[in-house]
Amino acid sequence: MSITPASPVDAPALRPGQLLARGVCRHLVSHGFACVEEMVPAPGLRVDVMALGPKGELWVVECKSSRADFAADNKWQGYMEWCDRYFWAVDAAFPVELLPDETGLIIADAYDAEIVRFGPESRLAGARRKALTLKFARHAALRLQALRDPRPSFLSSAGDEQLTNGL
Amino acid sequence: MSITPASPVDAPALRPGQLLARGVCRHLVSHGFACVEEMVPAPGLRVDVMALGPKGELWVVECKSSRADFAADNKWQGYMEWCDRYFWAVDAAFPVELLPDETGLIIADAYDAEIVRFGPESRLAGARRKALTLKFARHAALRLQALRDPRPSFLSSAGDEQLTNGL
Repeated sequence: MSITPASPVDAPALRPGQLLARGVCRHLVSHGFACVEEMVPAPGLRVDVMALGPKGELWVVECKSSRADFAADNKWQGYMEWCDRYFWAVDAAFPVELLPDETGLIIADAYDAEIVRFGPESRLAGARRKALTLKFARHAALRLQALRDPRPSFLSSAGDEQLTNGL
Repeated sequence: MSITPASPVDAPALRPGQLLARGVCRHLVSHGFACVEEMVPAPGLRVDVMALGPKGELWVVECKSSRADFAADNKWQGYMEWCDRYFWAVDAAFPVELLPDETGLIIADAYDAEIVRFGPESRLAGARRKALTLKFARHAALRLQALRDPRPSFLSSAGDEQLTNGL
């Protein structure tokens, strides 16, 4: 009989893209960036990683586990207007020549990552930065509360509804 | 032999003030506020609960589990300049006549809470609100990452250092 308790990492099992996101987030902390995953900057858009720097910089990282995963994404250009810098994160086997030159590139695995190329910076306007920082803050705090204080009723509460609707 | 896995709530055991904070945070979600606990708005200050509303409102709640706990707090007036509204949270047995009239009051237990009195609103200046929202966002995201992806090395990493120093 196994008595190994489930950890937040292991349960449920992470998909390939989520494993890349984990490595990306670990690495970005070393650059001073705090990260959230699967945030909704605007209705209909969900970014894999949104990272917030010490001076308020906002980066978006989309994680692609395969050529097919990349090919199926027809929304990525819509993400660029929601960040100061945009990056792809792929594993070492990914055919990086498929990726557009004008974007950033991170090579990642489940445990760490490395920034290979910074794309051009395109600074957010003040009002959008303010709204996006507020959304990031509320997303992170509500997710944190759901993990710190898990309750059956929480998932149907105001908090989760706010998360689902991108707050 | 017990094989009950520790949950994020039970381990470690929460102190009386932390139990009040849990009830406060549960209640504030129903008002649309996202909460973090034990945030450092400025060096030397650590607030029990910082709550961020849907329009960017920032509230501070200090949780006092006893008369002695309240009497020992000589910093609370310093917290008022770091929020739009300030509240005390106490349990139903607390002698509320000790609390200053010009502050908000929340009656709480470990499971829920109720706002009894709103203190006066004192709106933060724009620059401070911006800095404090950024700090809240980064605090919440770094704490969330530490829970989602617990690693022995994380506690000595840049992330924890940022948290300890109030980011």
